[in-house]
Amino acid sequence: MFGPTEQPTATEDNRIVPIERYGMKLMSMGFLTDADTPAVLRGPMVTRYTQQFLRQVDWGDLDYLVLDLPPGTGDIQLTVVQTVALAGAVVVTTPQEVALIDARKAVAMFHKTNVRVLGIVENMSHFLCPSDGVRYDIFGSGGGRREADRLGVPLLGEVPIDVATREAGDTGMPVVARAQESAVGQVFVAMAGQLRATLES
Amino acid sequence: MFGPTEQPTATEDNRIVPIERYGMKLMSMGFLTDADTPAVLRGPMVTRYTQQFLRQVDWGDLDYLVLDLPPGTGDIQLTVVQTVALAGAVVVTTPQEVALIDARKAVAMFHKTNVRVLGIVENMSHFLCPSDGVRYDIFGSGGGRREADRLGVPLLGEVPIDVATREAGDTGMPVVARAQESAVGQVFVAMAGQLRATLES
Repeated sequence: MFGPTEQPTATEDNRIVPIERYGMKLMSMGFLTDADTPAVLRGPMVTRYTQQFLRQVDWGDLDYLVLDLPPGTGDIQLTVVQTVALAGAVVVTTPQEVALIDARKAVAMFHKTNVRVLGIVENMSHFLCPSDGVRYDIFGSGGGRREADRLGVPLLGEVPIDVATREAGDTGMPVVARAQESAVGQVFVAMAGQLRATLES
Repeated sequence: MFGPTEQPTATEDNRIVPIERYGMKLMSMGFLTDADTPAVLRGPMVTRYTQQFLRQVDWGDLDYLVLDLPPGTGDIQLTVVQTVALAGAVVVTTPQEVALIDARKAVAMFHKTNVRVLGIVENMSHFLCPSDGVRYDIFGSGGGRREADRLGVPLLGEVPIDVATREAGDTGMPVVARAQESAVGQVFVAMAGQLRATLES
């Protein structure tokens, strides 16, 4: 979603130099393999790469280090909570019941491992029909809000299903960089602001 | 998506009895834990459960054994291809470029492990606006078709983003069981028919 990248280089003391885009430093498995090559990895290798990305990347001074994890409660999640002290976790879900079941499990895992849950993001929240402006709650309505209330954590935002957001990701320029003033851009800005306020309080 | 279930029982020789729904026998990690409890598992445990589900479930005579895997190319995928001889793999993707990148990697993994790719399913293909019938290609158009052509495998079907399908899953009755004659029901029936024909040829 940040476009094609060059391969990361290494520093003299063999640390990985992250890729820079839009004022952020990035590191991903995808940068180390070519586009068609899968990273077919068993758990112990996944653990090793996760630790390497945390400890052997030349991150320098950062405001925040954001880890975008795959769904689930497996090796990557366990390795992260056991390797670094996290300021908190954000759980992303879609509104329908079968997704909320998994979100609940993620929240339970973070509670069990003493990681603060900073809030829930409801993704694919609704679709605003471009022709008539009608809101379609394709994946149900209010699931994120109900779950956040039930768990006693903030609902950070409701991100709509949005063509511009998808196009922005596909072209390698996030919608907040491309169209920050748009309605969906403002959803992301508001979520970031709320998260920042929570972390600084 | 098959509704809440009772805990599976065991046979006298300690094999797991699968849950039955709609003429199918089912087994899932979700049946073994309560709804709020995450299965926090590292790779070796994931491997053990995967093997147990393949070998220690009292499946009896089946027409087909379908394994619904999480995204990725990790422990579960590797264990499956190394434990049983698969008739083939179906790769499910959404149409946008960032999803196709991962679908390509899944196909590459199956090629590498000598598993036949039976075809590609394009999920969340488009949204038919209920009020005006206009088709919105929210996640792009034709990505599944292009990828299938590029890889020389069949495109098995294009499953729309559909409220009835989501509702059916949330209430525990798949849309093919609930409304087989509907447009989306027919998409699933056609895909199953094409898969069956491929496997029997």
